[in-house]
Amino acid sequence: MSDAYYLHLTDRLRDLLETPEAFGDDRLPSERMLAERFRTTRVTLRQALAQLEGEGRIHRSNRRGWFVSPPPLDYDPTRDAGFNDYVQAQGRRPRTEVLLTDIRPHRPAAEALGLPIDHPFHHIRRRRFVDDRAVLSESLWVVPERAPRLLEGDFTASLWGQLRDRWGVTLAHRSLRLYSEALRAQEAEELGVAAGTAGLSLRRAIFDAHHRPVEYDEEHWLHNALCITVDLENTA
Amino acid sequence: MSDAYYLHLTDRLRDLLETPEAFGDDRLPSERMLAERFRTTRVTLRQALAQLEGEGRIHRSNRRGWFVSPPPLDYDPTRDAGFNDYVQAQGRRPRTEVLLTDIRPHRPAAEALGLPIDHPFHHIRRRRFVDDRAVLSESLWVVPERAPRLLEGDFTASLWGQLRDRWGVTLAHRSLRLYSEALRAQEAEELGVAAGTAGLSLRRAIFDAHHRPVEYDEEHWLHNALCITVDLENTA
Repeated sequence: MSDAYYLHLTDRLRDLLETPEAFGDDRLPSERMLAERFRTTRVTLRQALAQLEGEGRIHRSNRRGWFVSPPPLDYDPTRDAGFNDYVQAQGRRPRTEVLLTDIRPHRPAAEALGLPIDHPFHHIRRRRFVDDRAVLSESLWVVPERAPRLLEGDFTASLWGQLRDRWGVTLAHRSLRLYSEALRAQEAEELGVAAGTAGLSLRRAIFDAHHRPVEYDEEHWLHNALCITVDLENTA
Repeated sequence: MSDAYYLHLTDRLRDLLETPEAFGDDRLPSERMLAERFRTTRVTLRQALAQLEGEGRIHRSNRRGWFVSPPPLDYDPTRDAGFNDYVQAQGRRPRTEVLLTDIRPHRPAAEALGLPIDHPFHHIRRRRFVDDRAVLSESLWVVPERAPRLLEGDFTASLWGQLRDRWGVTLAHRSLRLYSEALRAQEAEELGVAAGTAGLSLRRAIFDAHHRPVEYDEEHWLHNALCITVDLENTA
C-alpha cells in the first residue's frame, strides 16, 4: 500500500531529523536526492514531507528547498510566567524590540475590558525574538488609571513585572482567546513573512483583584513558533 | 492619516457585519460597490477587509468575493464537555460522520502514552460538522486494554461517554498540545478546502485515575472555525 509506505517513509525521515549530525546545516538535501536515497518516487516523498511540514518539523523556503524547523516554544497559558522567563527556561534566547509607544483609544480593548470605546490607553507595540528569529508581534493596551506615567518605563523587560513592582497591580483574573489566523500585512512584515501566512492569535483581557480592568493585549505568533501546552487534572 | 482612516473604515464595516439585515445573504457587495458606498479607495478598503479577515469576521471565496464568516465555536479545553454538548450549548447544530475504524499501531500515540511503538490501538477517524459545515477532522487512538471490543460501538456519539458508561474509565489526567498548522492534503480534502489552508491542531493524551494510558487524539480544525477560550483566576 502506498499509504502505508509513505507513513513508513515519514517515520524514517523523522528519525533522520532527530539526528543532529544528519545535515551539515538546517537545510535538507534536494527532493531528487532524498527520493534517490530512500528509493522512492517524488510523489511519495512529497506526501511524507507534507506530513512533516504539518507536524511543524520542516518548512519550505521559497525556491530554496526544505529546512529543519526550530522546535516550537512551549507556552502554558494557565501558568503566570512572562516571555523572558519561559523562553530562557527552555534554553532559548529571548529578545524584545519596542516598535512604538503612544496613547490612543482601541475599540477591541475597550470592549474586552468593559470601558467606553473612546477611552484612551497606554499603547505599546513590540516585536519579540527567540534565538534571533522574530516570532511574535504584539500590542499591549494598558488602562492609564492603573499605571500612570507607564510610558516612561523600559518595555524590553516584562510589562507585568513593572505593573506589579511600580504600581502594585496584581493580575487576578485573565480571560484568554486563542485562534488560528492569516497574518495581516503589518504583522507579517514585522515577522518577515508574506501576508496571509498562518499565525496564531492570542488575546488577553486582564483584571486586578478588585475586578478593575488593567490590560488588554493582542499577540500574533508566527505559524509553528508556538505550541500551547496545558496539563489538566480532573478531581471528579 | 491613511492608517487612522482604514481603522475607522474597519470599525464601520464591523458595525455593518453585526447588523444581520445588512446583507440579503452572507455575501458582501463587490469591492467596487463597497469603495463607492464608503467613498474610499480600493487600497484602503482592502486594508480594512484584510483586517476583518484576520479577525475571522469575513473570508474570501475564490473568485466569488467576500463572505461573512459564521462565528467561531468557543471551546474551553479546561472543561470536560464533549463536542456535541458544547456545540449545542452555543445554539449550533453538531453532526458526526465516522470515516474509518480499524486496529493499527500509531507512533505519535504510542510515544505520547508511553507505550511500545508497535502497540496496536483501536483507531477511529471522524469528520465533525457545525451547522452542516465540516469543521473538524480527527483520529482517536484508544488503548485496547482499557476498552475491549470498543469498535463494535457507535462513534457518532461521544467516545468519552462510552468509555465512562461501558468500561467505567475516568479521564483523570489530560495533556493538551495545540498549535497552528498548514492542513495536509488528507485533512484538507475531508474539510473541503485547499491543502495548505491554515488549521488548528489539538492533540490530547489521556490517562485514567490509576495513571494508565487511555486515549490519544489528533484534531485538525478548520482555520477560524474554533476559538479557544480560557478564564483563569489567580489566587496569589
